[in-house]
Amino acid sequence: MKIGIYGYGNLGRGVELGIRQNPDMELFGVFTRRNPETVHTLTGAKVYAADRAADYAGEIDVMIICGGSASDLPEMTPMLARHFNVIDSFDTHARIPEHFANVDEAAFRTGHTALISAGWDPGLFSLARLYMNAVLPDGKDYTFWGRGVSQGHSDAVRRIPGVKDARQYTVPVPEALAQVRAGENPELTTRQKHTRECYVVAEDGADKALIEKQIKEMPNYFADYDTTVTFITEEEMKRDHQGLPHGGQVIRCGNTGADNGHRHVMEFSLKLDSNPEFTASVLIACARAVGRMHGRGIFGCKTLFDLAPADLSPLSGEELRAHLL
Amino acid sequence: MKIGIYGYGNLGRGVELGIRQNPDMELFGVFTRRNPETVHTLTGAKVYAADRAADYAGEIDVMIICGGSASDLPEMTPMLARHFNVIDSFDTHARIPEHFANVDEAAFRTGHTALISAGWDPGLFSLARLYMNAVLPDGKDYTFWGRGVSQGHSDAVRRIPGVKDARQYTVPVPEALAQVRAGENPELTTRQKHTRECYVVAEDGADKALIEKQIKEMPNYFADYDTTVTFITEEEMKRDHQGLPHGGQVIRCGNTGADNGHRHVMEFSLKLDSNPEFTASVLIACARAVGRMHGRGIFGCKTLFDLAPADLSPLSGEELRAHLL
Repeated sequence: MKIGIYGYGNLGRGVELGIRQNPDMELFGVFTRRNPETVHTLTGAKVYAADRAADYAGEIDVMIICGGSASDLPEMTPMLARHFNVIDSFDTHARIPEHFANVDEAAFRTGHTALISAGWDPGLFSLARLYMNAVLPDGKDYTFWGRGVSQGHSDAVRRIPGVKDARQYTVPVPEALAQVRAGENPELTTRQKHTRECYVVAEDGADKALIEKQIKEMPNYFADYDTTVTFITEEEMKRDHQGLPHGGQVIRCGNTGADNGHRHVMEFSLKLDSNPEFTASVLIACARAVGRMHGRGIFGCKTLFDLAPADLSPLSGEELRAHLL
Repeated sequence: MKIGIYGYGNLGRGVELGIRQNPDMELFGVFTRRNPETVHTLTGAKVYAADRAADYAGEIDVMIICGGSASDLPEMTPMLARHFNVIDSFDTHARIPEHFANVDEAAFRTGHTALISAGWDPGLFSLARLYMNAVLPDGKDYTFWGRGVSQGHSDAVRRIPGVKDARQYTVPVPEALAQVRAGENPELTTRQKHTRECYVVAEDGADKALIEKQIKEMPNYFADYDTTVTFITEEEMKRDHQGLPHGGQVIRCGNTGADNGHRHVMEFSLKLDSNPEFTASVLIACARAVGRMHGRGIFGCKTLFDLAPADLSPLSGEELRAHLL
């Protein structure tokens, strides 16, 4: 199966590295909007100009689109679905129905197979929510994120005047997690579920008290949370905050029985050293399923909800039943 | 969707109760090998003789077979798949390929849809192993069971002369769990993964030292484990050991990155007050998917690996994408 990578940032690099772990896959190359001659890939993969991608339509089985959800993917995925089988990690939850419809139209009309919103949330966490809801209809579920770096929140802090660099960690509140795991089905406010930790490098002479106030009062991003702001040096930022770890858990507690007296707690959790590399690993497994569905004449837009799990694996049905069932 | 229950033990009763939580389902009735007049159902469900089941073939969308794996299901499931769409929870891992082939032949030939080995292990734990292996090909996974009651091991202790009643709990070794969760990918022997706790009511005058020795040295069941034996009274057994709790976790740790230096830990865990009621809840969700697949003309034997997750849910694709993705 020949894979193309469209967009070469952290996620694209993760896909490039991850493909080496899957012997049934081959990397055709990377498509970039930059000048291809200026882009040097980690593994020596070939680099092509993004605006010439359609020229290679016959040579690529699945194109993994590694653009940003805010502005790139809403344009890119429908556009590329006219020429390729495609996968993206679109993660703006509120706009998924609209994105799905656009991609479905483009893919179906041209006989391609598309998968949107793959990754871990949306993605594996969505699957966990679906399986858990189907099995325990009488219950309640919770999603916690972190401890991990939120790129969006880090960017928001960096836009404050006087901030040179910043890193924001989302952290679940341990007491809330413990209550949920104990099956107490608590009502939790936004503030009770997560805290936010900001590590900030200030410009020389910046008003640190003002920066801290601006962060803590920023609507949508921080105002609804207990936020801590720690000023650090550039050296500390480089030494302690270069990684992109993340993770979290989906937990559902539900009841069964004659008097609903039996309680069951289901939990799916992730602890990731590298958010982009793990997301890339999910996209690669999904590429396998998309290629197989296309081979069966299943066209249009899908999500992980529509994929038979067996299609994600390189093993045959017999092997899966014998070794993993 | 009309559901039949074939076999009315703990699991069948769990299905009977669980169907009430699913408004799109209706219980047709219970089929028993006992005299139907002697069986009183928990919810007033009708009772039919098992040997007349085929008479009701046109009135039942999916038959959930609630027999034992050791002797019942290898016969029952292929036999019933000739008349019904069927689901079972066959859990003898080593014999799954053979059972699959028998059920597939019977179901496919008669235009029925069958699903075997649904539940939590095999079942949801198998799914966790499959998703985790597909996403992190370079890694290692572990399955821990417990703390929970093993019926097979409890029965084995009960067969020892001088034993009046017994309950066996399988317990994961905390140190092993911690190592695995820390991503250390340890090599663990059987003894290092689980311990076994036996609670035994002895007959009056029985040789307790001999019973303890016979338990601890029993091949396959106990000899490879660190086993503790605690003698208790009949009253204590009734008071403290009437439930059938269980649970466990599947954990996979894998690496990604240029030098494989990033570690990711995925975990799926269950903590269940009632093993049979939770297993029943999985079977009911699967019945929905089997009914839908049959409606699409997909015949033969399937496992959870072959089911699109969306088919387990009563929600539409639009609802799932809007609320759970």
